[in-house]
Amino acid sequence: MGDANSVNIARLKEYWTEIDDLSSIGMVLYWDKQTKMPKSGAVARGEHLSTISSLIHKRMTSPELAKILEDLGKEEAHLEFDSDEAGMIRAARRKYEEATRLPEKLIKEKAITASQVYMSWLKAREENNYQLYIPDLKKSVDLGRKTAEALGYSDHPLTALIDQHEPGFATTELDVLFQEIREFLVPLVKNITLSGEAVSDQVLLQYYEPDLQWRLSQAAVRTINFKLDQGRSDKSVHPFSIYFTPDDVRITSRIKENDFRPCFFGFLHEAGHGQYLQGLPTAFRRTPLMGGISSGMHESQSRLWENIIGRSRFFTDNIYPVIRAFFPQQTKGVSADDWYKAVNAVKPSYIRVEADEVTYNLHIMVRFEIEKGVLEGKYRVEDLEEIWNAKFKEYLGITPPNPKLGILQDIHWSGGFGGGFQGYTIGNIAAAQLYDQALEDQPDMLNEFIKGDYSSLLTWTRRNLHDYGLKYTPQQLLEKSTGEKLNTKAYFKYISNKYSDLYGLKINQ
Amino acid sequence: MGDANSVNIARLKEYWTEIDDLSSIGMVLYWDKQTKMPKSGAVARGEHLSTISSLIHKRMTSPELAKILEDLGKEEAHLEFDSDEAGMIRAARRKYEEATRLPEKLIKEKAITASQVYMSWLKAREENNYQLYIPDLKKSVDLGRKTAEALGYSDHPLTALIDQHEPGFATTELDVLFQEIREFLVPLVKNITLSGEAVSDQVLLQYYEPDLQWRLSQAAVRTINFKLDQGRSDKSVHPFSIYFTPDDVRITSRIKENDFRPCFFGFLHEAGHGQYLQGLPTAFRRTPLMGGISSGMHESQSRLWENIIGRSRFFTDNIYPVIRAFFPQQTKGVSADDWYKAVNAVKPSYIRVEADEVTYNLHIMVRFEIEKGVLEGKYRVEDLEEIWNAKFKEYLGITPPNPKLGILQDIHWSGGFGGGFQGYTIGNIAAAQLYDQALEDQPDMLNEFIKGDYSSLLTWTRRNLHDYGLKYTPQQLLEKSTGEKLNTKAYFKYISNKYSDLYGLKINQ
Repeated sequence: MGDANSVNIARLKEYWTEIDDLSSIGMVLYWDKQTKMPKSGAVARGEHLSTISSLIHKRMTSPELAKILEDLGKEEAHLEFDSDEAGMIRAARRKYEEATRLPEKLIKEKAITASQVYMSWLKAREENNYQLYIPDLKKSVDLGRKTAEALGYSDHPLTALIDQHEPGFATTELDVLFQEIREFLVPLVKNITLSGEAVSDQVLLQYYEPDLQWRLSQAAVRTINFKLDQGRSDKSVHPFSIYFTPDDVRITSRIKENDFRPCFFGFLHEAGHGQYLQGLPTAFRRTPLMGGISSGMHESQSRLWENIIGRSRFFTDNIYPVIRAFFPQQTKGVSADDWYKAVNAVKPSYIRVEADEVTYNLHIMVRFEIEKGVLEGKYRVEDLEEIWNAKFKEYLGITPPNPKLGILQDIHWSGGFGGGFQGYTIGNIAAAQLYDQALEDQPDMLNEFIKGDYSSLLTWTRRNLHDYGLKYTPQQLLEKSTGEKLNTKAYFKYISNKYSDLYGLKINQ
Repeated sequence: MGDANSVNIARLKEYWTEIDDLSSIGMVLYWDKQTKMPKSGAVARGEHLSTISSLIHKRMTSPELAKILEDLGKEEAHLEFDSDEAGMIRAARRKYEEATRLPEKLIKEKAITASQVYMSWLKAREENNYQLYIPDLKKSVDLGRKTAEALGYSDHPLTALIDQHEPGFATTELDVLFQEIREFLVPLVKNITLSGEAVSDQVLLQYYEPDLQWRLSQAAVRTINFKLDQGRSDKSVHPFSIYFTPDDVRITSRIKENDFRPCFFGFLHEAGHGQYLQGLPTAFRRTPLMGGISSGMHESQSRLWENIIGRSRFFTDNIYPVIRAFFPQQTKGVSADDWYKAVNAVKPSYIRVEADEVTYNLHIMVRFEIEKGVLEGKYRVEDLEEIWNAKFKEYLGITPPNPKLGILQDIHWSGGFGGGFQGYTIGNIAAAQLYDQALEDQPDMLNEFIKGDYSSLLTWTRRNLHDYGLKYTPQQLLEKSTGEKLNTKAYFKYISNKYSDLYGLKINQ
């Protein structure tokens, strides 16, 4: 372990305590804001969150930290790459560099602009008119460019923005990935659409009593071993998961009375994120190693439990008797097989968050290509509604009838243009890749699943992802856990097997 | 306004922003801890709260603040005493001095000891054995003495400890107050007890469905104009009120299934505190003037609405039809007059938090006398159980059968010995004094009350207390609002009128 107990590592840990505490405290403020706070508390809460941010920023960019990192730099070469100490230095340096590269003036400009752009996004949505959004979206794009320049990049400005969410991922790598996805998914979606209404989701579109939905969903997340008693579950408009310590992990969900999916699968999704958070080592608390690696790695966990497990045949067979007990009326004459088909129905639709497992990545691809084109100067902001619609037609076969169902649906670009979407696709693909490896390492798992026992899979993810905290970048982690960098093999295999069966198709990989 | 817009005032405000934000943030953490946090989150939450405290302490004792206050000292003489600026300087200096006078070593020692003493208090309670508490209570007393020495005092060490909760109140003043209370209340309680069971509270001791209790209580606090939509109400084991901004004020209460009082009057009590917090000027946010003056002034507001209004004849007449609608079974054949008598029944009892309006101050007097005697060295910690019981017998006519119903009932001495109790009595007395003045200023109020309109009283407290924030000490405030320092006249008049009527007694003031 080299100089494992060095004085400088101790200095770094001691210094970091306050940063990690403040970050957790900020998350308490955020959780309360999203779940419990009365509207009238918003102004003060904004100020409090901003005070926390600037205290963290100050401490993250101080000369004292620079000195500690400089002193540690001399020791790093003697440390094993896989040691906690080396990982801690890498993680701290990454954060220090990101924080110091962004000038404070730019950070403030972004914060002020973000709330302006957000307001104008709300207005444009309300009036269903993209034109109203253009001037402010331009500001957002402009700040995205400035941010990319300040952070620096090699291949493409988008890489700098992606790096904030997905350290180490280059735009060119993602280009290859999306190229493969395009070639695989676009014809598949076409074939599924042509196959007619063989698979229907009508059974899910009945009235499901909200309270019962909530209780059923809680039962479901317990079966996948999310510890609800070491956290909470609450309602919120936009579902999310958050942690203050691995011993206090909170998830939220929302309920639609006339659609079974948002509450049930939303709960499984957030519990998947929650698994990751509950699995982070408490020993890493208050150190630079604390946290989930990236949006994509986080999404790999939520998608694993929401889709690969939650929408599997075995999970359906396990939980369906419970669902029937909760909703005897709605499920009358509906077999487990019918239900399985319903929750896996594929249908091109306009809204990303409602998209099925097969079309989802195409939604992301549209956004990724637009971000790339805009930052390159290839696309003008004025033309994005048309570009969006054309790409949508090309990939999904349908054209959004209005901007609310198209380019105005996401909040992301209001917060800052660029780099906010690719994590969803990385997560979908990584979920399949990790799951494939877990099955190879633990072939008995499938038999346990059939009995309703999902604990081995959780254990595997603990050991191969959660336990590492922030020690590795996403690609380093995947190589370590699966022997390969992120790639589409397992994902295509998973989609092929599942949907050729469901839709009676022959799928070429 | 003198040098109202001085550069130095601007420096002070700017400097204070972070202190006030951190203090509000700490309150969010505390609220969540008491209402929503899973037990497993406690360790991290303790660390986060302690990080907030030490950030506040650091900023409150910095040489930078010392310099600002020094510079302001030169200007203070030119400012009107009643100006916001002068009040701001006084409030800031008070806090600066309190923070700097306590050595950091002592603060840490107190924090560590407090949790030890708390554990030993829990254990002693569990085993109902005061002996087990003695060694740790001695430590608490010792630290109370050290704190008093560090803070400094003129007449009595207890004054230094009282000053932390009730700025400007001397032990000798309180001695006089309690002397008067003793002479007035002890014989009164004796007479009431001798008068027999004329007034019974049996009707309150039935099963009241918890959910209905909660909804009824919310309706009740709405009638006194607490804005529930600019805050929240939640359940907690120990009821409290808290604010993050005057626009987000949260109260909590608890429910006893077989006693109507804790939920209903607890709600009114906390809503009374909440009125104060919702009334603090938003213009004072993030400045040294933000906050409630003292425990006693806070208690004056909770007692005003819980007792003087909440247990009045007019309030009962207003709310009783609603109570009957909620609980027709329990109130069958019970008239509004019966109900009024029941909620005002006087009966010497062991537990402070359950004590009625008349005996309550005697509970406080026992504690005040003990704190004083111990700090003087007149009482030994070893003898306190006997001393407690003897005083209890003398003042209330009953002897606690065991320490859980006696000396072990309160948490206060575990957190730090001395100065934690007098606020309850100051509040009871100040409530009557303020109310008396309000009636004199606005004689029409009683007619409005009869119609169920309590808004004028709230307006009066806004103008005469809430609006000032931390500008004055309690005595300065009372002099300004009522023309007199704290005194027992109005309180004795209020008690005499109400209870001579209720118990058919002739009471000599």
